[in-house]
Amino acid sequence: MLPSALNDLIECLGRLPGVGPRTAERYAYFLLKNDRVISKNLANALDKLHDSVKTCPKTFALISEENELSPLYDSPDRDKSTILVVEEPLDIYAIEHTKSYHGTYHVLGGAISPMDGITADQLHIKELIDRVEEDSVKEIIIATNPSVEGESTAVLLEKLLHEKYPELQITRLARGLPLGISLEYADQITLASALNNRTKI
Amino acid sequence: MLPSALNDLIECLGRLPGVGPRTAERYAYFLLKNDRVISKNLANALDKLHDSVKTCPKTFALISEENELSPLYDSPDRDKSTILVVEEPLDIYAIEHTKSYHGTYHVLGGAISPMDGITADQLHIKELIDRVEEDSVKEIIIATNPSVEGESTAVLLEKLLHEKYPELQITRLARGLPLGISLEYADQITLASALNNRTKI
Repeated sequence: MLPSALNDLIECLGRLPGVGPRTAERYAYFLLKNDRVISKNLANALDKLHDSVKTCPKTFALISEENELSPLYDSPDRDKSTILVVEEPLDIYAIEHTKSYHGTYHVLGGAISPMDGITADQLHIKELIDRVEEDSVKEIIIATNPSVEGESTAVLLEKLLHEKYPELQITRLARGLPLGISLEYADQITLASALNNRTKI
Repeated sequence: MLPSALNDLIECLGRLPGVGPRTAERYAYFLLKNDRVISKNLANALDKLHDSVKTCPKTFALISEENELSPLYDSPDRDKSTILVVEEPLDIYAIEHTKSYHGTYHVLGGAISPMDGITADQLHIKELIDRVEEDSVKEIIIATNPSVEGESTAVLLEKLLHEKYPELQITRLARGLPLGISLEYADQITLASALNNRTKI
């Protein structure tokens, strides 16, 4: 019933995560109603995407085509003796926004998840273990997500790293109350962690 | 910090209605992680969009470039003596999905909204009034949205149409309980309408 070009666009937009047919329709109609420059810019950005973004062979962060290594590893400002380990490349930018970290990163490329068929072999764990020696790393901060998959991955990483480098300091992000959540709404596990890891004031 | 191609894409996706920076990031990363065919198809659909979709000069529905008039007007199966008036082109497809309507449509192109600077002159009201005579229309079904803007537009349409064609039947969609909403959650106005417009069983 809809013009085929509009239908095609709705179908393509419906592939995006969490976008159902109604949302896809709304996006498509917005693009159609507005200046064609918006659609053209989006089309150009999509065309360039895969050729202009590559993965850093050392940290597995996303980097521009013209870079050899991630600037967050390569720069002399970054302390190579600390590695913060994340699941996905975009997690790096969440940490960078805090402006509280000056070490390097390592992207695992996911978390162990037998349900989704993701095993430890598919993650960049071996490369992380190699980096410890190459860069004389003193501390590994494990910043996987606080999910079942993230926690299992953290446990495995700790085991593998500790076996090979008993001297290496291995830490993980603190669990506690996030800003703006009142006590009565915090879940039990978070609250228990916040209590156990209480800090002196 | 992000590769510039990814940043550009996130910025373009952030233009879509209701898409904030985090959602745009999620869409962009999804497109990057998945097969480039998905991005290419979306880019192609966007490139074609504006040249392949035009507006029917009679009903203001969206039509494919190769059509002269909307098939929902042109087809001999459609009863031209009834016009259902909607605000936006996509509203037509919501009605068509019901398979309960066989007349023609007329898209106003919005609703009167002084706040957004949309006046009656910017809507396709004159063209609707002209169609009544051209197509010997017997009934106009006003299907504007049940919002303040939609209701004001409906009132104005009724007035203008009734002034010019006192014999014309003007109706609007029934107000009542939608499927799946229990009485206690229905708002007062809806419930009052449902009571006033009760039907015999």
